[in-house]
Amino acid sequence: MSEPLKIDIARLMGRIEAMASVGQIEGGGVNRLALSEADRDGRDLLVEWMQDLNLQVTIDAIGNIVGQRSGSKNLAPVMTGSHLDSVATGGRYDGTLGVLAGLEVVERLDELNVETRHPIAVGCFSNEEGARFAPDMLGSAVYQGSLDLQSALNTSDADGCVFGDCLDAIGYRGNATVPAAPPHAFVELHIEQGPVLENAGITIGAVESVQGISWTEYTIDGVSNHAGTTPMSMRKDAGYAASALACAVREIATELGAPQVATVGALSLEPNLVNVVARRATMTVDLRNVDDAILIDAESRVAAVVDRISEREGVHIQSRILARFQPVRFSESIVRSVTHWAERLKLSTISMPSGAGHDAQMFAPRCPTGMIFVPSRDGISHNVREHTDRSDIEAGANILINLLTELATEDY
Amino acid sequence: MSEPLKIDIARLMGRIEAMASVGQIEGGGVNRLALSEADRDGRDLLVEWMQDLNLQVTIDAIGNIVGQRSGSKNLAPVMTGSHLDSVATGGRYDGTLGVLAGLEVVERLDELNVETRHPIAVGCFSNEEGARFAPDMLGSAVYQGSLDLQSALNTSDADGCVFGDCLDAIGYRGNATVPAAPPHAFVELHIEQGPVLENAGITIGAVESVQGISWTEYTIDGVSNHAGTTPMSMRKDAGYAASALACAVREIATELGAPQVATVGALSLEPNLVNVVARRATMTVDLRNVDDAILIDAESRVAAVVDRISEREGVHIQSRILARFQPVRFSESIVRSVTHWAERLKLSTISMPSGAGHDAQMFAPRCPTGMIFVPSRDGISHNVREHTDRSDIEAGANILINLLTELATEDY
Repeated sequence: MSEPLKIDIARLMGRIEAMASVGQIEGGGVNRLALSEADRDGRDLLVEWMQDLNLQVTIDAIGNIVGQRSGSKNLAPVMTGSHLDSVATGGRYDGTLGVLAGLEVVERLDELNVETRHPIAVGCFSNEEGARFAPDMLGSAVYQGSLDLQSALNTSDADGCVFGDCLDAIGYRGNATVPAAPPHAFVELHIEQGPVLENAGITIGAVESVQGISWTEYTIDGVSNHAGTTPMSMRKDAGYAASALACAVREIATELGAPQVATVGALSLEPNLVNVVARRATMTVDLRNVDDAILIDAESRVAAVVDRISEREGVHIQSRILARFQPVRFSESIVRSVTHWAERLKLSTISMPSGAGHDAQMFAPRCPTGMIFVPSRDGISHNVREHTDRSDIEAGANILINLLTELATEDY
Repeated sequence: MSEPLKIDIARLMGRIEAMASVGQIEGGGVNRLALSEADRDGRDLLVEWMQDLNLQVTIDAIGNIVGQRSGSKNLAPVMTGSHLDSVATGGRYDGTLGVLAGLEVVERLDELNVETRHPIAVGCFSNEEGARFAPDMLGSAVYQGSLDLQSALNTSDADGCVFGDCLDAIGYRGNATVPAAPPHAFVELHIEQGPVLENAGITIGAVESVQGISWTEYTIDGVSNHAGTTPMSMRKDAGYAASALACAVREIATELGAPQVATVGALSLEPNLVNVVARRATMTVDLRNVDDAILIDAESRVAAVVDRISEREGVHIQSRILARFQPVRFSESIVRSVTHWAERLKLSTISMPSGAGHDAQMFAPRCPTGMIFVPSRDGISHNVREHTDRSDIEAGANILINLLTELATEDY
């Protein structure tokens, strides 16, 4: 049994550092909202690195970037990758780690003159976060055919900017057709973005599933009125209705218990003035669970509360589904392989679900797919304080290089 | 006993119509936020009308406009007036009625060659609404000395625009000094902005008091985090804390019962994204009561809830007082006079408190002061659908002309 392969952590950290300077914001984080100028600059840097490594670079019609290292046979590539886009106040590891670890795997295999049967491809997928355009994981969804190209291109952001136009504006509407053929296998390295690994003192998470996600936007119409002269009993207060719904959403999550989570992350009032009862409120509800039956239960409890509030406060509440992903199960064989390589590398490991959505889940119905998690300090992500220790990044990337090489050596 | 005086309702409605075209917005309402270009245009039109009526026009250091009709003696003027500024989506009668009814009184007295001992002055006070600059009733507060000129000029709006600079920008920083001497008496005609008169089928409200007002802004700092991976028990969610506070504010108002009212009219989240637990929430609480003891009780209940939420959710909550006015009692003699003239004019009348703050309350500690209310359809105000019937406007203005003339005839 040969020794496991090892990546060059100094080189990987150098690339992470360089990418963190693109769209850098105070506190060491980044703002690379999808299709922004900072996103474009990050893509430019990635393409430059891919060209330096002599990868065959393709850009497809939704802006996904794929860099491919040749294999010795004409087979479907083994793929890895993630995303470079971020939330408005994001950290430097979310997504970026998976893309740059892929580059490091390729460069290390080149240095060691390792030849694989299957090509190895590194993907960077558009708009994974969903912070600017809904749904999230838009690029990988189009890449693997679960979302129609044209509807994705027609999506617009809060300012009415259309995805296709924004893609043109940053010069990343490519020629490669979508959906692409499924790869031979897909493995994504990602930070956990939660506290489970750190709390358990474990280095490697072998991800066995992804929570289902349900996003709904509610528009609540009440009656704007004078805050001093309208008796409480006569109010149709859209702002109060929104707050009551947000409180109920928290209660529902508490009643259903872990792993159910529920979040009202966006809430705004009109006219939003101290002395005017709000005419309109707009808010989002984000529900997630690994068990689709419980997720459906959560959705129906929220819907019932919406009806009750609407009736009690005399407001009109309109709902719009922004995203709905069923829970995803990853390949058991890849979960076992992650565990196997962790043991070979003397790294502690557990199997776990993912609380966040990831590009990998778009591949799961089409090829053997899995994910490797490394710890997030204090469980913090989508925040400039996001941090993962260098030694954990090294551990995760070492699993990745061995797993990809093993998959790429399979002779079917 | 001579017949009561009568105003010319067609002329008054014509001026209301003309003023409604300044800053007009869809639905027949107006947007004349204080010191905006629309506010300037409204002021320009008012000054033109005052000059047409040969009033002596003065503009003071905080932008209040006063037009004075001479009396036969060198005595303090009897004053009426209100404001032309509006909330962002306001109606055409709030404030405007009181200013333009004052002009109509003056024009009618001229027509009838009525000479009064005291001059009669019509005031238009800056930033009554408080929708752009806090506190509300800023201009009348400075005019009667309960607010320092310099602090008023230094107030800035949400965009950081300083009151003094905005006043210069619209050309309404005048030379007249503030505080001004108290007038002989002050009477303001205003729409009720609430449902009491309409529900009771009454035309004239003789206003005996104004609710006390307490405005507080809360800034809630939590921890921004990923909506999918952070267990509910580990969250420090500023958005949830804000919603919980908004719900508690409603409960407190319900517990204390009418006439206590409480409103969360402004609430915003950062970063305000569907899949990010909010890092920060900013919100306002507006509490009002005619009884200061109950208002203080309401304030302390809110403060206790703030402490509880802060501890339970692990968020930091900072509070800032935006405005605090004690309840005001108007002159009993003027309340009686309003009732007297209503009876003489065969108009139904009740004594009632005001739910909203008004410029008149700034005069109450300094001279005999009162207000006349006319009905608001459906109690709606601060809304483009605000409406008062022409016959009710006529009724209110007829009370005003007789009351002002009577007060201006007093020989002390």
